[in-house]
Amino acid sequence: MNDESQQPEDTEIIDRLYESLHQDDLDVARDSLEKLHPSEIADALESLPGKEREQLWDLVSPEIEGEVISQLQATVRTELLGQMQPHEVAEVTRDLDTDDVADIIQELPEEIKDTVLLAMDEQHRQELTSVLSFPEDTAGGLMNIDAVSVRADVSLDVVIRYLRQLGDIPERTDSLMVIDRGNKFLGTLSLSSLLSNDPEKTVGELMSRGTGIPAMTPAKEVARMFERRDFFSAAVVNDENILLGRITVDDVVDVIQEEAEQSLRNMAGLGFDDNMFAPVFTSARRRAIWLGINLATAFLAAWVIGQFKETIQQLVALAVLMPIVAGMGGIAGSQTLTIAIRGIAVGQLGKTNSRALMAKEISVGMLNGLLWASVVTLVVVFWFGNWPLGLVIGAAMVINLVIAALAGAIIPLALKRYGIDPAIAGSVLLTTVTDVVGFVTFLGLAALLLIP
Amino acid sequence: MNDESQQPEDTEIIDRLYESLHQDDLDVARDSLEKLHPSEIADALESLPGKEREQLWDLVSPEIEGEVISQLQATVRTELLGQMQPHEVAEVTRDLDTDDVADIIQELPEEIKDTVLLAMDEQHRQELTSVLSFPEDTAGGLMNIDAVSVRADVSLDVVIRYLRQLGDIPERTDSLMVIDRGNKFLGTLSLSSLLSNDPEKTVGELMSRGTGIPAMTPAKEVARMFERRDFFSAAVVNDENILLGRITVDDVVDVIQEEAEQSLRNMAGLGFDDNMFAPVFTSARRRAIWLGINLATAFLAAWVIGQFKETIQQLVALAVLMPIVAGMGGIAGSQTLTIAIRGIAVGQLGKTNSRALMAKEISVGMLNGLLWASVVTLVVVFWFGNWPLGLVIGAAMVINLVIAALAGAIIPLALKRYGIDPAIAGSVLLTTVTDVVGFVTFLGLAALLLIP
Repeated sequence: MNDESQQPEDTEIIDRLYESLHQDDLDVARDSLEKLHPSEIADALESLPGKEREQLWDLVSPEIEGEVISQLQATVRTELLGQMQPHEVAEVTRDLDTDDVADIIQELPEEIKDTVLLAMDEQHRQELTSVLSFPEDTAGGLMNIDAVSVRADVSLDVVIRYLRQLGDIPERTDSLMVIDRGNKFLGTLSLSSLLSNDPEKTVGELMSRGTGIPAMTPAKEVARMFERRDFFSAAVVNDENILLGRITVDDVVDVIQEEAEQSLRNMAGLGFDDNMFAPVFTSARRRAIWLGINLATAFLAAWVIGQFKETIQQLVALAVLMPIVAGMGGIAGSQTLTIAIRGIAVGQLGKTNSRALMAKEISVGMLNGLLWASVVTLVVVFWFGNWPLGLVIGAAMVINLVIAALAGAIIPLALKRYGIDPAIAGSVLLTTVTDVVGFVTFLGLAALLLIP
Repeated sequence: MNDESQQPEDTEIIDRLYESLHQDDLDVARDSLEKLHPSEIADALESLPGKEREQLWDLVSPEIEGEVISQLQATVRTELLGQMQPHEVAEVTRDLDTDDVADIIQELPEEIKDTVLLAMDEQHRQELTSVLSFPEDTAGGLMNIDAVSVRADVSLDVVIRYLRQLGDIPERTDSLMVIDRGNKFLGTLSLSSLLSNDPEKTVGELMSRGTGIPAMTPAKEVARMFERRDFFSAAVVNDENILLGRITVDDVVDVIQEEAEQSLRNMAGLGFDDNMFAPVFTSARRRAIWLGINLATAFLAAWVIGQFKETIQQLVALAVLMPIVAGMGGIAGSQTLTIAIRGIAVGQLGKTNSRALMAKEISVGMLNGLLWASVVTLVVVFWFGNWPLGLVIGAAMVINLVIAALAGAIIPLALKRYGIDPAIAGSVLLTTVTDVVGFVTFLGLAALLLIP
């Protein structure tokens, strides 16, 4: 449960912390720190630039270091763990959920990883190894091995006595996994049915039958399942349907959030780990590639303009107006692109309905093209007193907006077919199309119709 | 639990459905429909264009219509409900969770709303009214009134007997709400501690004390709390700390997803409800405003270029190259903008660390500016054989990339201060800055240094 809902605005806490660290007022900082939940401390660490981040980390009390670490985003975590000794890492991760430890371990350099594993007790290490054997972004990588399992043929009464003996039921247990003698997964028994039914009944009578999630299922699909079915937790099984562990919704929430965030970051050409206070050189390097690709396409557009040098020389108003045509195409195209990228990401845009989407988007492009082309024509006629020029820019705009709609739908679908993330490559390809088409149609029509 | 994890790829189902609807092969469509979970049917409805959507909806069997409706996104839902009679709506929503019914009811026209409310039984209506009294995007709007509550002074044994009498514990109950005689919220008792502890102990000894979430807390903050604290469910209270209901994580997952999605849609100037198959006119109208605003700023940039007409006439290469300077500024600026917008959205970017972010972003802009300016200079010298021109474009690029970084950080922070969503207005303002600064510095430097 939440125990400080009347908290001040998020940024206030961070502001206060930052202020006190900046003024080297460590007592005040330690004070504000004590009022925070580990997840909020993680948040604060992510919000601080390098120097203040280290200062703050030194103030975190050892008992909660593990929880804070587990809530940090990967890059910041790696940065802080990089400064710790292997035995310290082992110490810090001792009380964490296995899936969280697995996430952390995977980011460590090989030699430290082994030392950390050796510093753990036997059971802990074995559990960890089973999670580590699956890639991070699969059901197996997300799972915890702390599922409580019972057999179908026992009575509720026996289960209740068993749980009481067990004493310590893992956190966030809402249901028990039902298995057969061979550890094969049969279904689940929710704690609420366990509590609300006649204790004489058997587990088998009350459980909800179901199949578990195969361990190699991609995390993305797991997220979609949880989202659609409103699960709190679900079983993970191997190829032989043997119960391996369970996934709880809190781990899935992180996946869902990262995924939606990822489309946004990819469309801007930011690497996955380019966090707010990543070191300057790291950020610069990650973004440089994107800028370089865009520069290449900008030169392509420049080359296209270069083909119309004489035309521009004869009517310099073309140079004044040409960015309008290209720019509007880019804006309209990226609206279609955004819709298509999200449609693909959530699995709603497939082969058959893509044609319907294109038809719709072209109609939208046509309507908005006609609307804004009229406005542009009128403004240009008013500004330059040149009707033919106004009509040429209007025509170029309609053409570019329709092509933009088409490209905005086709590009992501084609990229997807070739296994390329449409969010990464989509916007640069789209801009290339809208720039080139915009310049060619406008300058080309002008060369044909306006220049004697 | 999940009962068809071996499902085919999402889009395959939709493809098959679409195909059969398209060919009016309703038996096949009905067959594929039967294999789907209500949430997957909702997904399919969202993926289909208007005509096929209605056909499919007619095939959905009445027993699951309610669940399907509750899983649909708002616009599609409104469209389908609009074709139903009030008593049908009442029928369909009978078995849904109160928070879902509240969402649906809120979208109905006033006269239908009343008819639907009247068609409900008394208890249902009262529960609904209490949820409806809170705005949709607050804790009160998200809550369900089905919390099971117990008193602190009773023993676990009594609680267990009470639950068994109750018989029917609401779905997704992982903990009980602990209240005092005046219905004031004291804390929670998880079903797992209820099951794993000595039945002689009292609820008060074992509960986790805590304060509830005030009903008027914004949904966004509720989502942040769940995310950080890994809750499955949490209590909602009124001003006097009286227990009103509970929020479960599945409702929060929807909020989290919509929120991250929203930044993306807003940055592209898509309205909230512009779904993949919204009617053409609706989509066109929603996007037209955005295009109009961008057109206005494009004219501003054109006006700026117009000030340098004579310069361009004397050196037409300027017209060829000027989009490169403006474009690269836009790309670099939007990288910073994206980082700032998400930082603000998740509450990690505040007053004090904004200066540090600016400093970092300016350094990144400077580094990438120098890198790509050198490349541009070399290419231009090679292309036009004109060293001064190469140096001018290089200098303009460095300046524009630094200004872009600054603008990318300042614009969203300023918008936020004035209560404007940075994701909506940010990118158009940014492009205006990078276009104007790009054209002015490049053409201005050229006019000063290159034209005799």
